[in-house]
Amino acid sequence: MCYSFNVNKIEVLPSGTITSPKGFQAGAVFAGIKGVKSEKPDLAILYSEVPAAAAGVFTKNRVCAAPVMLCRQRIKAGKVSAVVVNSGCANACNGDDGFTDAAMMAEVAAKKVDVSEKKVLVASTGVIGRRLPMPKIRDGISRITLARNKGHDFARAIMTTDTVHKEIAVKAGGYTVAGCAKGSGMIHPDMATLLGFITTDAAVKLEFLRKALPEAADISFNMVSVDGDTSTNDTVLLLANGQAGNPPIAEGTAEAMLFAEALQYVCIALAKMIARDGEGATRLIEVNVTGALCKSDARQVARTIISSPLVKSAVHGCDPNWGRVAAAAGRSGVAIEETKLAVAIGGIPLLKAGRPLPSDEKKVSAALSRSEVTIDVSLNLGDASATAWGCDLSEEYVKINSAYMT
Amino acid sequence: MCYSFNVNKIEVLPSGTITSPKGFQAGAVFAGIKGVKSEKPDLAILYSEVPAAAAGVFTKNRVCAAPVMLCRQRIKAGKVSAVVVNSGCANACNGDDGFTDAAMMAEVAAKKVDVSEKKVLVASTGVIGRRLPMPKIRDGISRITLARNKGHDFARAIMTTDTVHKEIAVKAGGYTVAGCAKGSGMIHPDMATLLGFITTDAAVKLEFLRKALPEAADISFNMVSVDGDTSTNDTVLLLANGQAGNPPIAEGTAEAMLFAEALQYVCIALAKMIARDGEGATRLIEVNVTGALCKSDARQVARTIISSPLVKSAVHGCDPNWGRVAAAAGRSGVAIEETKLAVAIGGIPLLKAGRPLPSDEKKVSAALSRSEVTIDVSLNLGDASATAWGCDLSEEYVKINSAYMT
Repeated sequence: MCYSFNVNKIEVLPSGTITSPKGFQAGAVFAGIKGVKSEKPDLAILYSEVPAAAAGVFTKNRVCAAPVMLCRQRIKAGKVSAVVVNSGCANACNGDDGFTDAAMMAEVAAKKVDVSEKKVLVASTGVIGRRLPMPKIRDGISRITLARNKGHDFARAIMTTDTVHKEIAVKAGGYTVAGCAKGSGMIHPDMATLLGFITTDAAVKLEFLRKALPEAADISFNMVSVDGDTSTNDTVLLLANGQAGNPPIAEGTAEAMLFAEALQYVCIALAKMIARDGEGATRLIEVNVTGALCKSDARQVARTIISSPLVKSAVHGCDPNWGRVAAAAGRSGVAIEETKLAVAIGGIPLLKAGRPLPSDEKKVSAALSRSEVTIDVSLNLGDASATAWGCDLSEEYVKINSAYMT
Repeated sequence: MCYSFNVNKIEVLPSGTITSPKGFQAGAVFAGIKGVKSEKPDLAILYSEVPAAAAGVFTKNRVCAAPVMLCRQRIKAGKVSAVVVNSGCANACNGDDGFTDAAMMAEVAAKKVDVSEKKVLVASTGVIGRRLPMPKIRDGISRITLARNKGHDFARAIMTTDTVHKEIAVKAGGYTVAGCAKGSGMIHPDMATLLGFITTDAAVKLEFLRKALPEAADISFNMVSVDGDTSTNDTVLLLANGQAGNPPIAEGTAEAMLFAEALQYVCIALAKMIARDGEGATRLIEVNVTGALCKSDARQVARTIISSPLVKSAVHGCDPNWGRVAAAAGRSGVAIEETKLAVAIGGIPLLKAGRPLPSDEKKVSAALSRSEVTIDVSLNLGDASATAWGCDLSEEYVKINSAYMT
């Protein structure tokens, strides 16, 4: 991948969860929100023992779920004590009733952890247009047991069609940064709800936290996703509770750079887990675009290629159809020049200066059959680059999505 | 559909083809261009017995096939005698060699029909990045027999993954307008090459012809397609040879209105055939968006919904998941207002003023199981409307596209 991390200073913790940082607790139960039996919990609380500085990034969809509206309002104050989350129901398209339900869910969780309801955020994911089953929510919350070692339960509770939970924790500079996420449904990568929860025991100035999160999201979650093209519920929250005891990290310092790196490391790791677990996916695809005139051009070309169902289908079938990569670059809206375009798959150069190179189709097929497939595209116009992640498109995707609601 | 035609004056001809208008001939052979055996012809010529006034619309992809470059140059002169077309090879990403091959293909066809090569256009569709097999092209063209009743053979020769040929002819005002098209691969509807060939024996002033074709394409072919998001080879050509003997139709007259209607009727009929025959498709989906502030908003919302793999998968599974329609409208980039949004499927209202209506999920499922599924979305913001067509997304789509090249 394009990004180079200060790997000496960032250490991945084995079996890390969002309760790995000090002063965080979590808990989860099965509340039966979707109305079907399951072993998997579907309701969870994340709790910071002291109010945490908090930042969030949210969906840009004009149709936006009630919990997102609630989070947007409450996060302005900058301090958060708890987040209550459910899967199985998106609480979107429910009008005022939806907002009342989301606020009530926060209120019940606030009483549970004995904090002001204003310091409790809510996130939901699942079917749109159904009301939250409030009796089940109330009952479920009452049964949640919070503990300092239950971050993993939280990560499982937020899953919908995800086949694996997604979590990571890293140590850097005397503090821990951890995260968990859910998200699947990867044809238009961003159309399935993406929820991400990041915790850190670092003390971080709110102003810097609010800059660091969108920057990290931009090169991670937003690169398995097309900007502005998000679900009704997408939410990424970052809570920094300062329990590591470091002096608060401020923008423009060496500490800030290391914190930003650790945060980006966590976000990119989660983004890749999301891409790899795309609905029906059998492979992770990484698209590296280099030689663009500017960053936004590079991002746009990378996202267009990673979103192309024809490219994704070709990878699934190990079909060395690199022309689809060139065609996707060409229709990306970026002023590429065909005579400068280069494409390589799995490190094998296939197109240079807009002309095909002799290649062994069997070797390309073999490269496409690996569990991680790399597509390199050089525009040869400038110095900007970007990386996007996605997955192949399989018959299984369609099976999953043609019977999601019923 | 939103469009109302002057049906009294437009009469669909049974078994009409692009040689139904007077003075057109066609012929096709199997040349083996893709290197595999087939019963289906893959090389064809359309010939107008007198030079025809001609207009064209082409892909906006920055990576653009050699035949498209050749057409763009030659159509400027406004007169065309013949079009030579192949399937099985796109002749894209071949650099200067590709252009030389396309010009040579036109030259061989020009000799065959004894016209100036400058009056011969070329269209290709198939795999990107492979050279045209010129010996097969030469040999194939030499074996083509042109006749006034072989339009159907031409329509079959341009097919790739299409499962049915697509052609129609209508009579209007003493002349005939006919068309055939190919196109499939409907996840991002526009990513498969769309070729369309429209013939008429009406005499039409070149200036008006050049306006009428893009207008008709805009509400037809471009509504199974996202603007600017086209294949390397997309081409629609319109040839008017004047053999009906009418006074040349000029812009701003009643005759012009009728001609535009007949042309739009042909284009929309072909567009719907393309949508219905999307790769792996089992159903035609029609999305009608009303109440938009302006036409382009209506078009953008309609296209976003019709392109949504989640909507398409839900239709495939008869899953009454109307929330996906609302979510697609919300992320379309148009400033919709959730509290004004209304959605109906198969005529059954499901969302009004942003709130779900009580509905019988079984009835909605039944509506989704019909061979033509209608989705009506009202933004309730203004008076503009648009219609888009697409198809459901099936496991079969993936099967087709994961082994296209090999």
